[in-house]
Amino acid sequence: MRSAFHEELDSIGMTLLQMAGLVKIAMVEATTALLASDLTMAEKVIAADSVIDDIQHELDARTINLMARQQPVASDLRTLVTSLRMSADLERMGDLAHHVAKQARMRYPNSAVPAELVPIITSMGMVSDKLIEKLTVVMEHRDTVRALEIETDDDEMDKLHRDLIEALLADDWTHGIETAIDMTLLGRYYERFADHVVSISRRVYFLVTGEYSSN
Amino acid sequence: MRSAFHEELDSIGMTLLQMAGLVKIAMVEATTALLASDLTMAEKVIAADSVIDDIQHELDARTINLMARQQPVASDLRTLVTSLRMSADLERMGDLAHHVAKQARMRYPNSAVPAELVPIITSMGMVSDKLIEKLTVVMEHRDTVRALEIETDDDEMDKLHRDLIEALLADDWTHGIETAIDMTLLGRYYERFADHVVSISRRVYFLVTGEYSSN
Repeated sequence: MRSAFHEELDSIGMTLLQMAGLVKIAMVEATTALLASDLTMAEKVIAADSVIDDIQHELDARTINLMARQQPVASDLRTLVTSLRMSADLERMGDLAHHVAKQARMRYPNSAVPAELVPIITSMGMVSDKLIEKLTVVMEHRDTVRALEIETDDDEMDKLHRDLIEALLADDWTHGIETAIDMTLLGRYYERFADHVVSISRRVYFLVTGEYSSN
Repeated sequence: MRSAFHEELDSIGMTLLQMAGLVKIAMVEATTALLASDLTMAEKVIAADSVIDDIQHELDARTINLMARQQPVASDLRTLVTSLRMSADLERMGDLAHHVAKQARMRYPNSAVPAELVPIITSMGMVSDKLIEKLTVVMEHRDTVRALEIETDDDEMDKLHRDLIEALLADDWTHGIETAIDMTLLGRYYERFADHVVSISRRVYFLVTGEYSSN
């Protein structure tokens, strides 16, 4: 029989998964809003960010409360501290989806993304989604094999980011400075989103193995 | 007489101040490296970042160890959890200084900053420095008055950031896309640096008052 303490730990884990699910939806919808110049969807993502923020506040309060009431032993304490860090990463990922959606809204009814960059941004959106999908499995099953895979999956995002900057610098770039600024920021948002996936994945890996998966 | 526990709490606070001091130096030196195209200084900032990372790892281990050994009551526990969050903010601020220094190194022996933008970047560096200077006082003396001031001081950074983007979009911009990309990223690094100052300052305010200083 699980103790009440471990039931609460499980419940914290479930809420983290719920946050990851909302962040996943937010980034998919933000990318759609961006590529389809869909103002309604952009507004939806922007509004939904406060839901993620609220869940984080409530979750962190619950986690700290559990720390205060119980005297968790080393590994349980480590799990709780890691939960606080994971919720901070997920909250920040929600912010980044929110930034992407705001970019879509700012340029509406125009598209923020020139036609020839649609494939790269589409791929960045797909890689983001693949990463957080895998992260959800890592979090739910403490899957260290997939945690290690995420390290290399992230290389795809880095490559797309380099491709994006290269496209901005190509001689045939005709979209001017404003679009270049937009695309630089968008590239950064997707890249940071992936960085946070890697960060959470490393935290899970460390929790399970007691070792760092890299540096 | 202070208990051993409170002595350890104080010591954690001292280490956070030490981190803030190193981050302050890193950002000042990164800005100098950037504006003076000083490769030696850029390399120094880049190398020093791992020192900040190491201090964070050691500090977090110490904080979690203290949580495990003691059963801190509500307010002490809140202080320890907040320490973990503050060290994460400071570590990230060190990364941002590191990014600025890398930008200086990447364009060396050229300057990454065109002459007409030197005043704005100089100001962004100065506002960063003023913010972290004030943050150090907030942290050391739990100074809620200055914590509130930081909220408005940060508006200066936002204004500089808007000025920077405006300069990139001006009709007389002649430096091309690559420099515009560089400046967009640099602007973002300074802006995020200031955001983290605000974040830490709010954490101190909350610790002292039990209330949020904003939103």
